[in-house]
Amino acid sequence: MSILFDHSRPERIGLPETVFCQGKTVDAVAGLMREHVGPLASPLLFTRLSKDMFEAIPEDVRKQVDYHELSRTAWTGVLPEVKHGRAALVSAGTSDGPVLWEAARTLEYLGFCRTVFEDSGVAGLWRLAGRLDEINSFDAIILVAGMDAALASVLGGLTPKPVIAVPTSVGYGVAEGGKTALHSMLASCAPGVTVMNIDNGYGAACAAARILRLFNG
Amino acid sequence: MSILFDHSRPERIGLPETVFCQGKTVDAVAGLMREHVGPLASPLLFTRLSKDMFEAIPEDVRKQVDYHELSRTAWTGVLPEVKHGRAALVSAGTSDGPVLWEAARTLEYLGFCRTVFEDSGVAGLWRLAGRLDEINSFDAIILVAGMDAALASVLGGLTPKPVIAVPTSVGYGVAEGGKTALHSMLASCAPGVTVMNIDNGYGAACAAARILRLFNG
Amino acid sequence: MSILFDHSRPERIGLPETVFCQGKTVDAVAGLMREHVGPLASPLLFTRLSKDMFEAIPEDVRKQVDYHELSRTAWTGVLPEVKHGRAALVSAGTSDGPVLWEAARTLEYLGFCRTVFEDSGVAGLWRLAGRLDEINSFDAIILVAGMDAALASVLGGLTPKPVIAVPTSVGYGVAEGGKTALHSMLASCAPGVTVMNIDNGYGAACAAARILRLFNG
Amino acid sequence: MSILFDHSRPERIGLPETVFCQGKTVDAVAGLMREHVGPLASPLLFTRLSKDMFEAIPEDVRKQVDYHELSRTAWTGVLPEVKHGRAALVSAGTSDGPVLWEAARTLEYLGFCRTVFEDSGVAGLWRLAGRLDEINSFDAIILVAGMDAALASVLGGLTPKPVIAVPTSVGYGVAEGGKTALHSMLASCAPGVTVMNIDNGYGAACAAARILRLFNG
Amino acid sequence: MSILFDHSRPERIGLPETVFCQGKTVDAVAGLMREHVGPLASPLLFTRLSKDMFEAIPEDVRKQVDYHELSRTAWTGVLPEVKHGRAALVSAGTSDGPVLWEAARTLEYLGFCRTVFEDSGVAGLWRLAGRLDEINSFDAIILVAGMDAALASVLGGLTPKPVIAVPTSVGYGVAEGGKTALHSMLASCAPGVTVMNIDNGYGAACAAARILRLFNG
Amino acid sequence: MSILFDHSRPERIGLPETVFCQGKTVDAVAGLMREHVGPLASPLLFTRLSKDMFEAIPEDVRKQVDYHELSRTAWTGVLPEVKHGRAALVSAGTSDGPVLWEAARTLEYLGFCRTVFEDSGVAGLWRLAGRLDEINSFDAIILVAGMDAALASVLGGLTPKPVIAVPTSVGYGVAEGGKTALHSMLASCAPGVTVMNIDNGYGAACAAARILRLFNG
Amino acid sequence: MSILFDHSRPERIGLPETVFCQGKTVDAVAGLMREHVGPLASPLLFTRLSKDMFEAIPEDVRKQVDYHELSRTAWTGVLPEVKHGRAALVSAGTSDGPVLWEAARTLEYLGFCRTVFEDSGVAGLWRLAGRLDEINSFDAIILVAGMDAALASVLGGLTPKPVIAVPTSVGYGVAEGGKTALHSMLASCAPGVTVMNIDNGYGAACAAARILRLFNG
Amino acid sequence: MSILFDHSRPERIGLPETVFCQGKTVDAVAGLMREHVGPLASPLLFTRLSKDMFEAIPEDVRKQVDYHELSRTAWTGVLPEVKHGRAALVSAGTSDGPVLWEAARTLEYLGFCRTVFEDSGVAGLWRLAGRLDEINSFDAIILVAGMDAALASVLGGLTPKPVIAVPTSVGYGVAEGGKTALHSMLASCAPGVTVMNIDNGYGAACAAARILRLFNG
Repeated sequence: MSILFDHSRPERIGLPETVFCQGKTVDAVAGLMREHVGPLASPLLFTRLSKDMFEAIPEDVRKQVDYHELSRTAWTGVLPEVKHGRAALVSAGTSDGPVLWEAARTLEYLGFCRTVFEDSGVAGLWRLAGRLDEINSFDAIILVAGMDAALASVLGGLTPKPVIAVPTSVGYGVAEGGKTALHSMLASCAPGVTVMNIDNGYGAACAAARILRLFNG
Repeated sequence: MSILFDHSRPERIGLPETVFCQGKTVDAVAGLMREHVGPLASPLLFTRLSKDMFEAIPEDVRKQVDYHELSRTAWTGVLPEVKHGRAALVSAGTSDGPVLWEAARTLEYLGFCRTVFEDSGVAGLWRLAGRLDEINSFDAIILVAGMDAALASVLGGLTPKPVIAVPTSVGYGVAEGGKTALHSMLASCAPGVTVMNIDNGYGAACAAARILRLFNG
Repeated sequence: MSILFDHSRPERIGLPETVFCQGKTVDAVAGLMREHVGPLASPLLFTRLSKDMFEAIPEDVRKQVDYHELSRTAWTGVLPEVKHGRAALVSAGTSDGPVLWEAARTLEYLGFCRTVFEDSGVAGLWRLAGRLDEINSFDAIILVAGMDAALASVLGGLTPKPVIAVPTSVGYGVAEGGKTALHSMLASCAPGVTVMNIDNGYGAACAAARILRLFNG
Repeated sequence: MSILFDHSRPERIGLPETVFCQGKTVDAVAGLMREHVGPLASPLLFTRLSKDMFEAIPEDVRKQVDYHELSRTAWTGVLPEVKHGRAALVSAGTSDGPVLWEAARTLEYLGFCRTVFEDSGVAGLWRLAGRLDEINSFDAIILVAGMDAALASVLGGLTPKPVIAVPTSVGYGVAEGGKTALHSMLASCAPGVTVMNIDNGYGAACAAARILRLFNG
Repeated sequence: MSILFDHSRPERIGLPETVFCQGKTVDAVAGLMREHVGPLASPLLFTRLSKDMFEAIPEDVRKQVDYHELSRTAWTGVLPEVKHGRAALVSAGTSDGPVLWEAARTLEYLGFCRTVFEDSGVAGLWRLAGRLDEINSFDAIILVAGMDAALASVLGGLTPKPVIAVPTSVGYGVAEGGKTALHSMLASCAPGVTVMNIDNGYGAACAAARILRLFNG
Repeated sequence: MSILFDHSRPERIGLPETVFCQGKTVDAVAGLMREHVGPLASPLLFTRLSKDMFEAIPEDVRKQVDYHELSRTAWTGVLPEVKHGRAALVSAGTSDGPVLWEAARTLEYLGFCRTVFEDSGVAGLWRLAGRLDEINSFDAIILVAGMDAALASVLGGLTPKPVIAVPTSVGYGVAEGGKTALHSMLASCAPGVTVMNIDNGYGAACAAARILRLFNG
Repeated sequence: MSILFDHSRPERIGLPETVFCQGKTVDAVAGLMREHVGPLASPLLFTRLSKDMFEAIPEDVRKQVDYHELSRTAWTGVLPEVKHGRAALVSAGTSDGPVLWEAARTLEYLGFCRTVFEDSGVAGLWRLAGRLDEINSFDAIILVAGMDAALASVLGGLTPKPVIAVPTSVGYGVAEGGKTALHSMLASCAPGVTVMNIDNGYGAACAAARILRLFNG
Repeated sequence: MSILFDHSRPERIGLPETVFCQGKTVDAVAGLMREHVGPLASPLLFTRLSKDMFEAIPEDVRKQVDYHELSRTAWTGVLPEVKHGRAALVSAGTSDGPVLWEAARTLEYLGFCRTVFEDSGVAGLWRLAGRLDEINSFDAIILVAGMDAALASVLGGLTPKPVIAVPTSVGYGVAEGGKTALHSMLASCAPGVTVMNIDNGYGAACAAARILRLFNG
């Protein structure tokens, strides 16, 4: 069977290895990080890397790493050249920031241009309306929202571009944990809105990258 | 205790008795109907009265009844004089019709003016936008939507009037049965949107009537 | 981003902007608070502001703020003149206090008279009975209950006034998290009881304000 | 192990064998029925025996059976002498009838006196109040309710007697299937209310019989 | 209504007031406790009173209170004379102890004899078998089990006495939180087993007391 | 499509191809059946083949097929020689028959000896006790139960042999659909009980066959 | 607000109007169909149009319509010219056919080339492996699977192309209704797999069209 | 209570007594441990024994115990002679380690050979492919996976050996808590895959031991 499947994920699916840090020990994360710093090391992306965990990593390693607190992401090494294709990242509220920026940072790491449009929820429709033409000039849209995620239907009905919707676990009561936002996005009345797992900003960026890579042969 | 509580619901809570027909036998419904037809009988409202059940009721009774197929409602007797206060009833799509019209017919039976704005879902925001000023001229708004019920957040964010949102069981997959619409409405980012049980158009009309009665001393 | 802040919301839907503090950083909350204190600043309401978070805010800001511990609310600025319309706030038990008082404080901030009737649950029906005539003299009723929320059906069946029911997350076992109270209220056999998300005292006050504003042209 | 456990359920737990007909074939039910009719046969109780199924049973067997349509129960043989102990059966609404009467008929079959108090839901508190003293004169209370089952907390708080609450699957939307009534009863704020599975009138009668048998040595 | 309902719960439903401490502040609990200590004070039961909370109560109050750590219960005052009627309390495993002992302590407080049979789960059927005759000599049985709660069906099928089953939140995976034990008990194939909310040992004792009071006129 | 048919599955995992008929059209099932009858055809197993569907298959095909109504299974061709290894199939009640016999028939088709022990539920522990030594003489045990599935813990605690538990969808209320039986089996306090999907008698037979094949080299 | 939003969905989001027939009356569907047949009518797509409903439509209308039974789709009018961009549609099993073909037919209607690869589930990995290079030559992949939907992780890990996964409601027990397939796809360990609502083949085609339109300026 | 301790379990079901430490006090665990150390004591297995709890046990006891941190297991006494039969333990990812190693350690304690194949998830199919022949040489396979658990269908379709699948609670969003992995495994399209409760590595080892004991007469 080994004949059938090639061995290298970056070449196979165009997406490099990533370390999901949540639930791992500081030692395990620090060890992987140390292996990927230095002039000869291949770059590596770390997600769900909390500020506490990052600060527990030895300073000599840490200072060779590009860390971004809000998104809880870090990478080692040098970013690739910028590729063709641009993504718009739109969020409903400021509390969706960690997920939005996880997607934004991942796209940056993968070499794609992205622009962020925060605080565009339907509670302030005129904000979204004022940005709509600009948003529609991008090749793909990542949409991040919690609570009832009404933004998915509204924006999905106003753009012809691919839409990747990410529900967030922001909310309380029936919205707690993100299930309501997830179900809302899946049941969206705007046709062709695709959906990711709750809080999966990284996956949304990968989905966008699969689309944008079409422009890069 | 009989001293403390009067025996007639209309006087106590301003809402007359109603017969929920679903799950009852034709004989039971026909019997109640026969007791409330004729010049001296007090009026009575019947809800969830399917066309099949209505047609199985003896013709002499049936022809004294005001039946409305889409809403599955019927009433006997003479409607009260029209009271002060007007309600707007807004639905997302045509498949929300049975619930919307159950609310509309109940309001009519209770003596309140109501106007229906169907097919105003967020998939066609311009339709809602074109009707917004008129909708905002009413004293209370009943909003009916299934699927992801994004209309609750959109309209709730554009009107200062009391909003009573009714989720419908329209939909499939995660939307099947109306739970997604219900949770979406409860988690709405528009403040002060109130919510009813799934498909409860009758209850929404009663809730609107509780508000409109404030104008009638 | 301050450009985007929704300063026209008060005019549009009659409800001023509010800051939901839970999940925000102390710095973010303190920053917003500092912008809204002082003689020229517009008032601002803060909800879900825990005592710990409030005490972490710099003292010079904090002492210009009206904070209420049980309700976890605070506001800056001067309250508006009292408007027409009065709301009764009824709770089942003392553990429903935080939600009840979030609603009470929000109504006060919005300029409406409100009176609180705590500990009126059905386990002590005589307490509710003794207060019923007074409760019915108000224009709208906010009802707060956890566990099985039987108060919704009992009080809903004894009052003709608009009822806004708020389930609380008080309880254990099947009642944990408030879903049982929520479902009980939605399935209430008293017609026309409207329901809010679990623990959403703020939203209930906004819903009451939408009704009471009808008296204020 | 056979030494440890005796072989005859009636003697062991005081409750005779019963046939749950739903899901069985007409042939299987008819066969069991035929074995238990006639002067020498031991009596047997059949539950969930629909009218359609009963009418499909051969007439010679059927006419030796005591069938009750609303409760969907039947028995063969002669009832035992009436034992000591009396149970009150209280239901919220007429649609709870099938479950209430399944309990009533089972108690009758087991040889206990029972009295039925239908339509005593909290939507009409005065009806319950008027019957309260009589209900409290019984040794055990079976309480049957669907929707939000508020009756459990109300009656449970007004009686010192053992209360066995049975949720029914009556309802729609969030009440569909009886889960809301079940959870409401389990979370009841009245202490010491016990609960059965949804629609399990037969089990409630057995639970009451376990209590009433205490009076019969 | 005050004419119809007396003000004292002990006389009305035979169960005295109880303070559920979880979620309350130490000050609130200590205040209530202080009011009920001393030679003239009426006794009061406290449940869900953790060791940490108890130790935070001022020592002068604390030393007048009968506290039991495992059950997290305390009472003030003098216990009533022992009444007629005896209850057996049977648990599946040692981790069900807190719930079992909450029931045991509540029965003691209410004045009833009770005997505890711990660690009688079906994983060791011979232990249960060896105790069966003794258990069956009691007037009522409280059964406490977590995980799959198979004990409900096994013991329910071996005893003619009233059985009050309490699911516990002990377990992990699908058993986490007690829902599996609850549903198992409700679906028990032994007829007439009644069920309480998860972890509700207090309620089970009240349910048993409602039965045992039948022996006390 | 016949090119893609998995004819090498028997060699790869030791389990031949099977047709799950539910949801397929009569034509599709009849077509597959026709391809596998006749002296030269390879045998094929059909599961979930209702009596109605079987009787709609052309008679010339049907009479070459071994059909078993209760289990809703059929096979074409000649059974293999009997292999080493024997399985005991134990069910709680007669309504578990369709699932039990689906497992029994599948084992027969796969060439293994199996013996059926029906109606061995814990409501009649003495029946199970009387058969225990014989059951323990088999190499693997398939256990089929619905409702609360207490049999899993009881039998699992009394046998050293591999136990494959199959929950059935038999039941009503909280047991409806088999989730309670499934969770009960997964949370069983008897160590090492393995579990299949609800109603999956076929899968249980395959799991037993994987074990019994160990005796056949 | 009408200034902000343009009025024509085809131009705005590149997706024409569609009629979801399930839940509509035959008359409503026939009426819409009649309006869109004839040389001058604009084309219209109908989904969830069962064979029974289609055959109830008047023949003169029906014969002007392109109907496809398995996919339950129909369209009126003339298809647009074929656009750039090609999609592969891959399904796990034959029972996923209705959803797969709904997607295939919708893509055809929208003017895009598509190729179908049925019966490629992981139970027969060699089938998928043999088609992998061809599948990877397409610009977007729609993946349709029920049960545990393991295909999403397997194929998602073997292709660099955009993947739109559609769970189907095929299955029984825990898989019934498609929730397990949905959750499996959302939790897929292959990065960047996007997901649609259960059975939403139409939406998947729209999502693919949003991507393929990027090649068409 | 030590009289009741199940010392005959090893003989009855071939599996020795085990202490599940989670939720127990350090004192309780230390006490049991002390009873089972020393030259004459019978061995005892401890599971879910966290590093923190282990380090809180008195050193004189602790140093006589074989503790393994990742698996959170410990045992006292001397291991039995190695028995016939070998198990392969395969996990999807490194975060499944604690469950995998709980199973591995338990098998070791029970006297069976086992080999661990970590990090064999379907995201890297070639790793699994490269190990397949070796894995298939074992007598039973324990498979541990979280998230969407696609490994169950993939490996289940490639091996003829008994497969015991253990879902892990690893994951976030819809995968949080392990329900998605559990349902995926139960709905696996590979026939005859058996499933354990979430995170139940100990149970999986016991299930494997029930199979392997067949080789030991």
